Amino acid sequence: MALITLMTDFGLGEYVAQMKGVIHSIDPDARVVDIAHDITPQNIFEGAFTLQNTVLHFKNAIHVAVVDPGVGSPRRPIAIQCENGTLIGPDNGLLFPAAHRLGFIACYEITNPEFMHDNVSNTFHGRDIFAPVAAHLSKGKKVADVGEWREGLEKYMVEGFFVSMDKAEGRIGRVDGFGNLITNIPRALIEKKMAHGASLKVFLDNKEEPARFVKTYEDGNKDELIALFSSSDHLELCVKNGNATDIFPVKAGDSLEVRF
Amino acid sequence: MALITLMTDFGLGEYVAQMKGVIHSIDPDARVVDIAHDITPQNIFEGAFTLQNTVLHFKNAIHVAVVDPGVGSPRRPIAIQCENGTLIGPDNGLLFPAAHRLGFIACYEITNPEFMHDNVSNTFHGRDIFAPVAAHLSKGKKVADVGEWREGLEKYMVEGFFVSMDKAEGRIGRVDGFGNLITNIPRALIEKKMAHGASLKVFLDNKEEPARFVKTYEDGNKDELIALFSSSDHLELCVKNGNATDIFPVKAGDSLEVRF
Amino acid sequence: MALITLMTDFGLGEYVAQMKGVIHSIDPDARVVDIAHDITPQNIFEGAFTLQNTVLHFKNAIHVAVVDPGVGSPRRPIAIQCENGTLIGPDNGLLFPAAHRLGFIACYEITNPEFMHDNVSNTFHGRDIFAPVAAHLSKGKKVADVGEWREGLEKYMVEGFFVSMDKAEGRIGRVDGFGNLITNIPRALIEKKMAHGASLKVFLDNKEEPARFVKTYEDGNKDELIALFSSSDHLELCVKNGNATDIFPVKAGDSLEVRF
Repeated sequence: MALITLMTDFGLGEYVAQMKGVIHSIDPDARVVDIAHDITPQNIFEGAFTLQNTVLHFKNAIHVAVVDPGVGSPRRPIAIQCENGTLIGPDNGLLFPAAHRLGFIACYEITNPEFMHDNVSNTFHGRDIFAPVAAHLSKGKKVADVGEWREGLEKYMVEGFFVSMDKAEGRIGRVDGFGNLITNIPRALIEKKMAHGASLKVFLDNKEEPARFVKTYEDGNKDELIALFSSSDHLELCVKNGNATDIFPVKAGDSLEVRF
Repeated sequence: MALITLMTDFGLGEYVAQMKGVIHSIDPDARVVDIAHDITPQNIFEGAFTLQNTVLHFKNAIHVAVVDPGVGSPRRPIAIQCENGTLIGPDNGLLFPAAHRLGFIACYEITNPEFMHDNVSNTFHGRDIFAPVAAHLSKGKKVADVGEWREGLEKYMVEGFFVSMDKAEGRIGRVDGFGNLITNIPRALIEKKMAHGASLKVFLDNKEEPARFVKTYEDGNKDELIALFSSSDHLELCVKNGNATDIFPVKAGDSLEVRF
Repeated sequence: MALITLMTDFGLGEYVAQMKGVIHSIDPDARVVDIAHDITPQNIFEGAFTLQNTVLHFKNAIHVAVVDPGVGSPRRPIAIQCENGTLIGPDNGLLFPAAHRLGFIACYEITNPEFMHDNVSNTFHGRDIFAPVAAHLSKGKKVADVGEWREGLEKYMVEGFFVSMDKAEGRIGRVDGFGNLITNIPRALIEKKMAHGASLKVFLDNKEEPARFVKTYEDGNKDELIALFSSSDHLELCVKNGNATDIFPVKAGDSLEVRF
């Protein structure tokens, strides 16, 4: 019996609870964990970034993710089988970065009505399609039975970064609860350029600000903009015991440039 | 062993955690699902509306709901046995619309001290009465044993709508995380009047705004006020990829009128 | 198999989910309950106060708490064995008031790498140290095996109150979701001075306001500042069906004085 995770842009309330009700009605023994429900509404980029950073910490789970501005349109509902788990959600790119991290095996379009709610609404496929699919898989049904095998489905480039000798370009992947700005610039590509104490210039929100690269939050000074590697191994901008959105009032998806 | 759900206006924090601690102390195997904890403080109407829309998606669960401005006053604590589940909470109308949906059988006043915390506080019956009752029922005790059978307890009319040939009057039942306004006007009563593309006039927040009836969010244009049937089968007002509270900064309980 | 609780200042999102993923990867049968994730960032006082009020309602659980401005610095990771449960977190005082309530037995510094993530990050010990320790204890390992026995670790005085004949001094321990101000002044020390209807003077936020002591919220009048004993047995300031932060826009940790 696999664990089911849920990530949405619904906020944690009755919509998520309805998904859980449907899951437990099909599989009373299901175990459900919330990943995040505060993804900025309709922000597929933020959702894909958040999902890819989190699924790695689960073992062979069933991940349901719903950031779905196209619900009710012809975009496809899909399930992706991976080496370490299964991903379920809309075919709008939300799932692919996570699928890549978990070891992509195959993608299926969900068409089998036995895996769906009796009456599928036009507005809430999370409850009427994705949740029941997760519960049926948790009970032991096979991913390949949800519908047709597909290839060439939309791949959303959550990466969207560029690193050269003297600079890195990227985007804000997520603003966390502390106001830390987690960029999508990967540690592996810039690690060699980043000595402790190195001076950086950050171009973001039509401003230029200096920043100092450090190892941990404790190394920052009061009100100083610091940069370090996030716990998901990306470049992160923050203020020790402060809030980096006071300097840059940005949101997930905004572009930035960092000069070394 | 039944699933226990919790809905409150406490916010998701230590008060809800204390209820869960009490539940698990009585029934270590209890399974608990949160419905919503962001009901506007003391808004019984919003709580009753949210509860009735959500309980339907659970099978034979024990639902604890606490929106309880009268805690500590003589209002009664009650448990309602239904065909599909049990409802537990204050006797202020919060539970009745949900009881109606789940198939009302009988209502009991909670008076049996064996179902309660040893010391019942004046301010937190969710923890000291309702949570222990739920845990004892989850362990197999009978609803009829919580106390005396009662009739004629307060029935709060969550409905409060009126539909005629050319208009519908009702209230905002809930503002969801996207800023969609879910009214309490039921789909069944207006479905025949609502052709795709039909023009409506919405009177709300001392303003009159035109709206277009559509099938799904995708059918809306940028910044256009659209109306559709919500996933709980009520009339819903929204803006595609936007926030309807930018047009109508309203809250749950506010009255509206829609002309066809 | 013990229940695991989590309390952090992370917000309820992917960081908490990563901790849960780690826990379930080590102990697939673990049961996890959230206490609160909305502690004001870096506010150890508020975290310690909230934790001590909540752990009492659990039976022999494993409590993980992370409010950790010093993550990555030499502050120690610790586990505290108590008569009624185990506490895990940073050695910054966060855990001691709760340990006192649960019956302190012994404190251990977490040094055994078998209890930790393979790669411990500089920024997220909640995921890389505290969550794995909790999961290993949930699976049956012994607290004494996490590392070295320690004494004299930092004890943060969450109490910080003073009561005399005619006044009580203390601090705001937590502002709850209703806007009620829960002070750290204990019921036991002032109960005899507090007759129903007694007049108080509250000095807070550079203001002096009269308040009336009552038994329950229902006893308040519209817009009146009332005082009562909280469900955690502390002095609480509130406005019936209102929000006391409209009168005192304070935050957890602020000092107050109450004259009888």
